[in-house]
Amino acid sequence: MPAPKYPKASRPCLIVGSVAIDRVATPFAQSDNILGGAASYASIAASYFAPTRLVGAVGGDFPKPFLKRFSKHGIDTTGLQIEKDSKTFYWSGKYHENFAGRDTLEIQLNVFEKFSPTLPEVYRETPYVMLGAIQPALQHRVVDQLKGKNAFILADTFDLWINMTRPDLDRLLPRVDLLVINEDESRLLTGETSLILAGRKLRKMGPRIIVLKKGEHGSLLFHPEGFFAIPAYPVTKFVDPTGAGDSYAGALIGYLASVNRSDLPALKKAVAYATACASLTVESFSVDRLSSGGRKTIDSRYKELETMTRF
Amino acid sequence: MPAPKYPKASRPCLIVGSVAIDRVATPFAQSDNILGGAASYASIAASYFAPTRLVGAVGGDFPKPFLKRFSKHGIDTTGLQIEKDSKTFYWSGKYHENFAGRDTLEIQLNVFEKFSPTLPEVYRETPYVMLGAIQPALQHRVVDQLKGKNAFILADTFDLWINMTRPDLDRLLPRVDLLVINEDESRLLTGETSLILAGRKLRKMGPRIIVLKKGEHGSLLFHPEGFFAIPAYPVTKFVDPTGAGDSYAGALIGYLASVNRSDLPALKKAVAYATACASLTVESFSVDRLSSGGRKTIDSRYKELETMTRF
Repeated sequence: MPAPKYPKASRPCLIVGSVAIDRVATPFAQSDNILGGAASYASIAASYFAPTRLVGAVGGDFPKPFLKRFSKHGIDTTGLQIEKDSKTFYWSGKYHENFAGRDTLEIQLNVFEKFSPTLPEVYRETPYVMLGAIQPALQHRVVDQLKGKNAFILADTFDLWINMTRPDLDRLLPRVDLLVINEDESRLLTGETSLILAGRKLRKMGPRIIVLKKGEHGSLLFHPEGFFAIPAYPVTKFVDPTGAGDSYAGALIGYLASVNRSDLPALKKAVAYATACASLTVESFSVDRLSSGGRKTIDSRYKELETMTRF
Repeated sequence: MPAPKYPKASRPCLIVGSVAIDRVATPFAQSDNILGGAASYASIAASYFAPTRLVGAVGGDFPKPFLKRFSKHGIDTTGLQIEKDSKTFYWSGKYHENFAGRDTLEIQLNVFEKFSPTLPEVYRETPYVMLGAIQPALQHRVVDQLKGKNAFILADTFDLWINMTRPDLDRLLPRVDLLVINEDESRLLTGETSLILAGRKLRKMGPRIIVLKKGEHGSLLFHPEGFFAIPAYPVTKFVDPTGAGDSYAGALIGYLASVNRSDLPALKKAVAYATACASLTVESFSVDRLSSGGRKTIDSRYKELETMTRF
């Protein structure tokens, strides 16, 4: 895959988060020593839409083919710190029957233990920024390094931070434009059972835009200009859900950067592209299908989503 | 509400199912001696779209205001057997916290114990028929009484019949055009976890059209001409889910009768109207909100659904 040519209006986007080596077991298969981490999935998804900058850290053991994968997608890895004397973040997980949940079997933080995101000088004016679900304190540090106050900031989080570092998270929310969150996390964070009420409450907690992900049930968008709902793309060859949410968020920020807009019509389209990218990710282990699928497949799924929702 | 005037193309529809007196407790409120039963919800919903005929049975205790409710909606109750010496089917249920499930506290079958649906002669050529979730053996009896083989037949079912009378149900499926089923029932009936695979498998079991209801997550339509997905209407004033699925199915058959079509574009619109009607039902106990909402509210929710799904 050659580095894509982006439309003229495209602005760059910045992805900050984990880059990992994963071992994943599903009820049907398993795969070891594969490229993982939120920022890996997100940056590859984003790279389909806009020039993409990656900030993260890996160890000296990080396989060359993984670096090559990033460069094939034209991803700028100037911000990817390679700590020669350390090892890459390692995650091993096992999904329950019917993918109803998953257990983390092993975590080796390695280089991630002391990770503090440092933005190269040229990254500091990136107009579209995604904060992967790293600790809120680190997400704050990224925002602190941005120059000016005009960047559009998307943040992801997860239940651990909601439970462990709630004050940091609460302070982060007013600093971001868009929060991407899943069903359970939205209930945990708001105390609301109804997802509609949860979404509205989250908007009052800071971010003016909320995207609530519901896995196989699609996603909901709460935007100052209106509400939007989209189903999941009907995947039939489901292999591994790891990274689906990260690909979703990456495509979202990438598309917004590509049109340099964040109004409701742009967000709706971004959510549809995000849905298409997530559907590719679950069709293989690691980033394989997301990476090989190509923009044509994404565009065709986008169009299918259009057809299957229009009445 | 005056009896509605229907468009010229409208054909009549027939609803067969339970008419009941309910007692419902939710985590927030309760209501006693209210109009219930699948055929009550379904016929009122259907009556917004097409001339509606009702087949069911009630006892001598059936309150006059409930009968009046049907006639206000222009529903033809010639087929509603009133057994003076018996009592109406009584159901009492209690919803769990967060509406995550419900317990049946009391059932008095009463007149329903010996109920066998008998279609008045003039009903036997009704071109659009909904079989509420009564025993499959009784659903068969309704189909047996239909004249000619051109009626479009929608069937509902529920987990009890899947578990208890599976052979009857299996024989029914090839006799119906459209099966309306919920998430759990679809998994129970097919053994598939993926709703996409479940929907496809159900089509192979007989009905050429499947509508898979997912409650707050909307619904999926599997049609020979294509796939369609729609979110739920974003209800914020959630009171009682009882009858939502029945209103949904009733609106579905009513809309199809009103346009006298069952192609994909018609089914998509029918599913959208069904979604709008179900959203009204959950906003009150019994049929109150569904009945008082009126066609204008239904049309406006239909339009909102259009807006909130288009990108």
